[in-house]
Amino acid sequence: MEKVPKAKRLDEYKEGEPVRDVFVVKIKKGISDYSKGYYFALILTDASAKSIDYRYWGGPDEARVKSIYDSIKNDSVVHITGQVSSYQGKMQITSNEQDRVQVLERGQYNEEDFIKKTKKDLERMKAQFNEYIGKVRDEKIRLLLEKIFHGSIGEAFWRQPAAISIHHNWIHGLLEHTLEILRYCELSKELYPGLNEDILIAGAMLHDIGKIEEMEMTTRIKGTNKGQFLGHILLGSIMVSEIMKEIGMDSETQNKILHMIVSHHGKIEQGSMKEPMFPEAIALYYADESSTKLNEIFNFIESNKGDTEDEFMPKWPRNLPTNIFLRNQDED
Amino acid sequence: MEKVPKAKRLDEYKEGEPVRDVFVVKIKKGISDYSKGYYFALILTDASAKSIDYRYWGGPDEARVKSIYDSIKNDSVVHITGQVSSYQGKMQITSNEQDRVQVLERGQYNEEDFIKKTKKDLERMKAQFNEYIGKVRDEKIRLLLEKIFHGSIGEAFWRQPAAISIHHNWIHGLLEHTLEILRYCELSKELYPGLNEDILIAGAMLHDIGKIEEMEMTTRIKGTNKGQFLGHILLGSIMVSEIMKEIGMDSETQNKILHMIVSHHGKIEQGSMKEPMFPEAIALYYADESSTKLNEIFNFIESNKGDTEDEFMPKWPRNLPTNIFLRNQDED
Amino acid sequence: MEKVPKAKRLDEYKEGEPVRDVFVVKIKKGISDYSKGYYFALILTDASAKSIDYRYWGGPDEARVKSIYDSIKNDSVVHITGQVSSYQGKMQITSNEQDRVQVLERGQYNEEDFIKKTKKDLERMKAQFNEYIGKVRDEKIRLLLEKIFHGSIGEAFWRQPAAISIHHNWIHGLLEHTLEILRYCELSKELYPGLNEDILIAGAMLHDIGKIEEMEMTTRIKGTNKGQFLGHILLGSIMVSEIMKEIGMDSETQNKILHMIVSHHGKIEQGSMKEPMFPEAIALYYADESSTKLNEIFNFIESNKGDTEDEFMPKWPRNLPTNIFLRNQDED
Amino acid sequence: MEKVPKAKRLDEYKEGEPVRDVFVVKIKKGISDYSKGYYFALILTDASAKSIDYRYWGGPDEARVKSIYDSIKNDSVVHITGQVSSYQGKMQITSNEQDRVQVLERGQYNEEDFIKKTKKDLERMKAQFNEYIGKVRDEKIRLLLEKIFHGSIGEAFWRQPAAISIHHNWIHGLLEHTLEILRYCELSKELYPGLNEDILIAGAMLHDIGKIEEMEMTTRIKGTNKGQFLGHILLGSIMVSEIMKEIGMDSETQNKILHMIVSHHGKIEQGSMKEPMFPEAIALYYADESSTKLNEIFNFIESNKGDTEDEFMPKWPRNLPTNIFLRNQDED
Amino acid sequence: MEKVPKAKRLDEYKEGEPVRDVFVVKIKKGISDYSKGYYFALILTDASAKSIDYRYWGGPDEARVKSIYDSIKNDSVVHITGQVSSYQGKMQITSNEQDRVQVLERGQYNEEDFIKKTKKDLERMKAQFNEYIGKVRDEKIRLLLEKIFHGSIGEAFWRQPAAISIHHNWIHGLLEHTLEILRYCELSKELYPGLNEDILIAGAMLHDIGKIEEMEMTTRIKGTNKGQFLGHILLGSIMVSEIMKEIGMDSETQNKILHMIVSHHGKIEQGSMKEPMFPEAIALYYADESSTKLNEIFNFIESNKGDTEDEFMPKWPRNLPTNIFLRNQDED
Amino acid sequence: MEKVPKAKRLDEYKEGEPVRDVFVVKIKKGISDYSKGYYFALILTDASAKSIDYRYWGGPDEARVKSIYDSIKNDSVVHITGQVSSYQGKMQITSNEQDRVQVLERGQYNEEDFIKKTKKDLERMKAQFNEYIGKVRDEKIRLLLEKIFHGSIGEAFWRQPAAISIHHNWIHGLLEHTLEILRYCELSKELYPGLNEDILIAGAMLHDIGKIEEMEMTTRIKGTNKGQFLGHILLGSIMVSEIMKEIGMDSETQNKILHMIVSHHGKIEQGSMKEPMFPEAIALYYADESSTKLNEIFNFIESNKGDTEDEFMPKWPRNLPTNIFLRNQDED
Repeated sequence: MEKVPKAKRLDEYKEGEPVRDVFVVKIKKGISDYSKGYYFALILTDASAKSIDYRYWGGPDEARVKSIYDSIKNDSVVHITGQVSSYQGKMQITSNEQDRVQVLERGQYNEEDFIKKTKKDLERMKAQFNEYIGKVRDEKIRLLLEKIFHGSIGEAFWRQPAAISIHHNWIHGLLEHTLEILRYCELSKELYPGLNEDILIAGAMLHDIGKIEEMEMTTRIKGTNKGQFLGHILLGSIMVSEIMKEIGMDSETQNKILHMIVSHHGKIEQGSMKEPMFPEAIALYYADESSTKLNEIFNFIESNKGDTEDEFMPKWPRNLPTNIFLRNQDED
Repeated sequence: MEKVPKAKRLDEYKEGEPVRDVFVVKIKKGISDYSKGYYFALILTDASAKSIDYRYWGGPDEARVKSIYDSIKNDSVVHITGQVSSYQGKMQITSNEQDRVQVLERGQYNEEDFIKKTKKDLERMKAQFNEYIGKVRDEKIRLLLEKIFHGSIGEAFWRQPAAISIHHNWIHGLLEHTLEILRYCELSKELYPGLNEDILIAGAMLHDIGKIEEMEMTTRIKGTNKGQFLGHILLGSIMVSEIMKEIGMDSETQNKILHMIVSHHGKIEQGSMKEPMFPEAIALYYADESSTKLNEIFNFIESNKGDTEDEFMPKWPRNLPTNIFLRNQDED
Repeated sequence: MEKVPKAKRLDEYKEGEPVRDVFVVKIKKGISDYSKGYYFALILTDASAKSIDYRYWGGPDEARVKSIYDSIKNDSVVHITGQVSSYQGKMQITSNEQDRVQVLERGQYNEEDFIKKTKKDLERMKAQFNEYIGKVRDEKIRLLLEKIFHGSIGEAFWRQPAAISIHHNWIHGLLEHTLEILRYCELSKELYPGLNEDILIAGAMLHDIGKIEEMEMTTRIKGTNKGQFLGHILLGSIMVSEIMKEIGMDSETQNKILHMIVSHHGKIEQGSMKEPMFPEAIALYYADESSTKLNEIFNFIESNKGDTEDEFMPKWPRNLPTNIFLRNQDED
Repeated sequence: MEKVPKAKRLDEYKEGEPVRDVFVVKIKKGISDYSKGYYFALILTDASAKSIDYRYWGGPDEARVKSIYDSIKNDSVVHITGQVSSYQGKMQITSNEQDRVQVLERGQYNEEDFIKKTKKDLERMKAQFNEYIGKVRDEKIRLLLEKIFHGSIGEAFWRQPAAISIHHNWIHGLLEHTLEILRYCELSKELYPGLNEDILIAGAMLHDIGKIEEMEMTTRIKGTNKGQFLGHILLGSIMVSEIMKEIGMDSETQNKILHMIVSHHGKIEQGSMKEPMFPEAIALYYADESSTKLNEIFNFIESNKGDTEDEFMPKWPRNLPTNIFLRNQDED
Repeated sequence: MEKVPKAKRLDEYKEGEPVRDVFVVKIKKGISDYSKGYYFALILTDASAKSIDYRYWGGPDEARVKSIYDSIKNDSVVHITGQVSSYQGKMQITSNEQDRVQVLERGQYNEEDFIKKTKKDLERMKAQFNEYIGKVRDEKIRLLLEKIFHGSIGEAFWRQPAAISIHHNWIHGLLEHTLEILRYCELSKELYPGLNEDILIAGAMLHDIGKIEEMEMTTRIKGTNKGQFLGHILLGSIMVSEIMKEIGMDSETQNKILHMIVSHHGKIEQGSMKEPMFPEAIALYYADESSTKLNEIFNFIESNKGDTEDEFMPKWPRNLPTNIFLRNQDED
Repeated sequence: MEKVPKAKRLDEYKEGEPVRDVFVVKIKKGISDYSKGYYFALILTDASAKSIDYRYWGGPDEARVKSIYDSIKNDSVVHITGQVSSYQGKMQITSNEQDRVQVLERGQYNEEDFIKKTKKDLERMKAQFNEYIGKVRDEKIRLLLEKIFHGSIGEAFWRQPAAISIHHNWIHGLLEHTLEILRYCELSKELYPGLNEDILIAGAMLHDIGKIEEMEMTTRIKGTNKGQFLGHILLGSIMVSEIMKEIGMDSETQNKILHMIVSHHGKIEQGSMKEPMFPEAIALYYADESSTKLNEIFNFIESNKGDTEDEFMPKWPRNLPTNIFLRNQDED
């Protein structure tokens, strides 16, 4: 079966252009009547992570418009013709009865058109990750890591993004992020040999493991209900704790590794249930911050520098912590 | 074997009085030499929750003093003779070589002399608690509660205090506190019938269940290492989650009950990992606050009103949220 | 005189529909010229608490358009014909010279079309309230409550809403809210018999009494200038203090009841001038929070669940304390 | 009757010195037995605002020691002989049975030995204050000020200190502080002529009027129960509101002047019930801050620079907002 | 060369009016195609400090539209014909190919049409400022001030605004603001003679001197990159420090004057690097706040009171610290 | 001249031991009379960073005691005989007239007995540091670093500690800390190649350069007045800015490097004047946090684990961010 190719990323479209492209449906906004018949509205997105309003202006045959609307589900991939207009101060895409609105089946489109993918090599990342497991000298800790990462949890982990937006929000992003943290932790161990390497590696590898239950990928990255209600810290702790009991890990090692998970957000006011109580937990917290915040600012500059001729993105109205300088010197 | 009776509560002793009484050892502070030989220091406590410094002034025979010191462990119950003096701005108890310092075995003292006990009737409280279980209409939720409270977890739960100090810090205190919360939740259900009673009862009963692993009672109430590292919210969630899986509870009910546990501290800045996301979680949060804060202020007034002729306990230097009025009108 | 009936609530209108209905004028936005003559703009509302922009597109006769505009006052009830369009990303209602725009007199419309009303029975609520007054054993305190609630202040109090929006924002809402608080306080007294019931009842009844001066109802609930400048805590305290002096209440009782009013917002950072200093004030604070926050979340879910197919209302951009789960399980 | 003169200020006494002096009793700390009989403890103070522990070591005649103790009340002025020792890391005064401990009657001591007094001329301050009243052009506002300041409230106001400690904590201190504020407000009016001078003067004069009920002077400055429970903002507002009604002031002027009182602490997190909503309230807030904070730092330097050879008073352990430089350049 | 006069201030335009006027270009928003050809968008502003969207709807000749667009730079002054419409919920100005869009050279327009100017007399302000310099008795401090204000730094200082918006945001605004501060400081010295007048004057004059590098005026007031990265406190300190070294000022005087600059934002949480450590720094902080906050509220009322019939500007959605009362009593 | 050797570190002394040792004088606490004559008090310290009270109990010859006291200055090294007692709840050292109290001259004692020294090799650290300078490709930036580190600033920098207490508070500690930061930054560059290495190295090397003026070492590490008033961020910026001008560095590079210094405390509420605005500044902030916080917790555990048998150091009363686990697993 031939796949419908993506024509352009959403952030490349300009007002007035014709559209003949595939998108994913983020939100269905309902069906209504208007002066000439019935219309429905959607919000569309793609791998660029931008969103756009969509309106289908149908004719007076309510059943026909409704059947198209009902064929579309949240997260459906749709093949659309229409055009870009600039209604309501924002760009939108509109179609009418002559245009095509067709839901594609899995296999009729390229998944990467809708969710970004890491630029790193997956197999190389997995090999590096497994090398770190190999460094663990405590047998029970190594067994714990092998049970988790060499089974079905590992399969989910290799593929998972690290976030819905903000940082490492792409396929294999969680692995990429975890490897960066392992690198920072490795350096910390070199500078502070008093750190226990086994605890450090285990904590780094497992701190975000709950994210495989906190988010899911359909045709886009979405939070799960479970994740909304419970968060990845709790979900990960439950997951890891179960396997710890299975392999009969001693209580103190359990406590310390679970504390690494529980305290990795660092500060109570950032939603951390506990603050780091020993050196390995502190090393992990700053390693996580370093990876997260650097990834975030590069993503921010990348996706915003085209939007303005100004050199700074002002703090307001986006409620940033500060103005951000958008010109990355090394590109000049 | 005859038990050594408690003579007086620590908060009843006055400077200059002779001492012939039993206490529990909270902290061992080490052994040192002084001008006339060797001495050691302890911190003692009892069910009054007050602490007092203790010094044993031994003679020049180091081995003899050391053997007494080594016979004492943290949490030992000791039978002491000596006297109360007011060294260093605080009262202390001192003994010398003529005095008795003897470690008692379990069975030689009354446990209630060292940890307070609820003033409520235990069997009546358990009956009330079980009545609430009986009200639950969802079979899986009722099964969950029965599995937890009618087995070994229940045994620990009936006996556990709700805190080390501050509120309901006595034997059966956790049960007493949980029943108060159930009463507030029951009233909320009456005022807001939209609340789901099953979720509300389950959340109220389970919200603090992790405290049975967070604290332990030897001869006093103490935090466990596990509790320090992980906290009762995480410990309770792991405990409950395991049994949920065992009985095959549906995912949404699991999520909602676990969310009740996870969000019951209410606000992120109070160390809550999640804030309440639905009405039952909000009802539980305020029920918990009501029970906790009322118990706390009555305890505070009770244990402080004798210390001053002033009508107010000032905010400083105790860092209270506000000055507290110590005269309870209904006693007049 | 026949009353003009309300056709639909504002939140039931959809784009493209014709309008022939009554609304209340929230804000007059001025008159201007445009290519074909003169137009004016209003913001309309009704008991649904939703707002909508309105534009009257008049012809070149400036005097005629101006005379219509001048006939309309803030809070006027207007009878309008026109249609719903979706200009500027939001729905609006537009009329033109052929349409009707007519200000109705009091008596020509039903007041309940513009301000919601409690679903509880007023006479039953008053009876319950008076029963609580009857429970007060201190004669001066009972006299104070009778003077306040059985005179003109009482008349205003029975009718007043508890807030402009957020919670109990309907006719008799303040009474309904106060009764809920009395119920929570009554339970607290049962659980903590050390609470002084007279102080508790008086504080609960009077804590929000200043709201009868803080808000007014015309055809909608509005803050008064007095309320903006001084707040209901100050206004209530002045009101109550005056009657206390009149009946010669002793100073300590005055202080304690007024402190209940002054401290009922609980925390300094929530605008409380004093934090609760004795148990009755603490009981009142949490009773108030329980009633307010439960009412608020049920209102929130009720008025938002229709707006989205999502199960959660996200924290942003509304600046909620957390994501809110919109599906109320008991309705399933 | 001859007055017993004060020998030295408490902050001038040194360890080891004999004592033959008068002090005021701040707190009675109770009577107890000790090895040789009965003793009692007090906390003494004087106009230096320092406090010192006092112990009377009596003999075995309990009735005799008790009768001395009972003759002493809180705030009694006592004539004492004894000596300064350095027990418990702090200086204390001790007496024994040979020493004198005698309660003095009003008239037997100089009041200024126990409460500081302004260094400014009272009559000149009153004249200046009345000149500002004379500047008020609105008749109702001037009448309000005359009713308040030329009657019994005025009498109390002229004499009152502005605080227990921190700033202007001396007899006539409230008048002195208010005059400084009037000067800053006068300058603000000159720089910003849009300010309404009548509202500004009235607000400045009345903003702290509640302090005459919030504190009382016996032989020292003390908070009243009323003040603890209600605070000077509420007490002042009630006081002023009553007289406003009496003279039939129009509602808007009432609102604006009362808002000046209510908002003068400026920020919610500083316990302000409302934040300043118009220019006059802003001018008053900063005038108050300027007078308070300058007085406070000069007092702080004055009473601390003798305590250390260091040039800075460190932030910790006193929890100052910052380190304070103690060397005042103009004295060099 | 004849200057093109300004027709109206932007805040005076109404929907539907024709435009034949000069504006300054704040932001260039790019060029695009549309159904009939090419268009470009700008944001225009003028001395009223309001902004408006502008669209030029060109024809199919891309080169022609692009050459007009490229002739316009950020901060260009443009002479435009067109009309006001109300697209997208906001007013905008539109032109088409028949209309004029012409960039004016310096000299073809009046600068004051684009940046506001003080209402005070410049020469009188400079004279007052120099009188304060004359009051300084310490020769080195006076020399420092003369070197700074009577050279090229002074030239820039006389002309500089104090802010981009908010307060004293007009030509000579920084001088006007600094003089107000000097007045408040002078009064503080009168009330608190312990203040060192030389340090106070020097600190007041120099505290904002870094603003001459933090903002620049082209045809509007703009932040510089240097200012964004470093802030006026650092820039001013570097500037002043250099001249201090040049004239060989003693170290303690350097430290105290530089501390006045460094601490003048008062509180750490307001971005102050140090909090005021001695009385002169405290006096300066409150003098600065008084001038800033009074200017700000009068500006706020002035520019907002015409926008609404309401008496209060609500706190939300503008995130004000409180609701602001918009009716200035003295104008009545 | 023979040096007086240090006998023991202050943290090794125990109550009752005789003392014959050298200490540094931290604070002189004054001279007073007592029952048998005159005494004076000091606070002593040494390289262990512990402090101890000292009392010299002299005889009735005031002149003799005073001449000893006057011979001692702040920071004097004194050779003392006496003994350790446990007065006032804390250990203290006391001497009497028979004991020796002698001020030593520079050369009579070993400096390292009073200030700790790095455990790393100085020459190796300098070589590593210079290698990083060699990596800088931009000539102006490399010149800047050479001018700073290869001249007199460098000499001071190599020797300086990084803090008075808390982290790297020993000779060469600033160099050791800076090298750790360079390592973290180097790794960040490897993970995020978009980082500009020259800016990153320059910012890392210069961010704390102002500390050479903020602290001084006599016989202990002390803050300077300059440092108290201005802080190391301002002092460093002035220092670096001067040399940037000297070598004619372009404005943008100046701005970026100075911004690295100015923003390295990260968050406004931590006293940062600016928050990091570009990726290199973010990388530096987290590198600094990682080095600081790891060093701090290892120091904390090292100096506290001997003080208690407990496994946790509780949060209170030391106001730690959380309880700290004192048992470092790798030592087991």
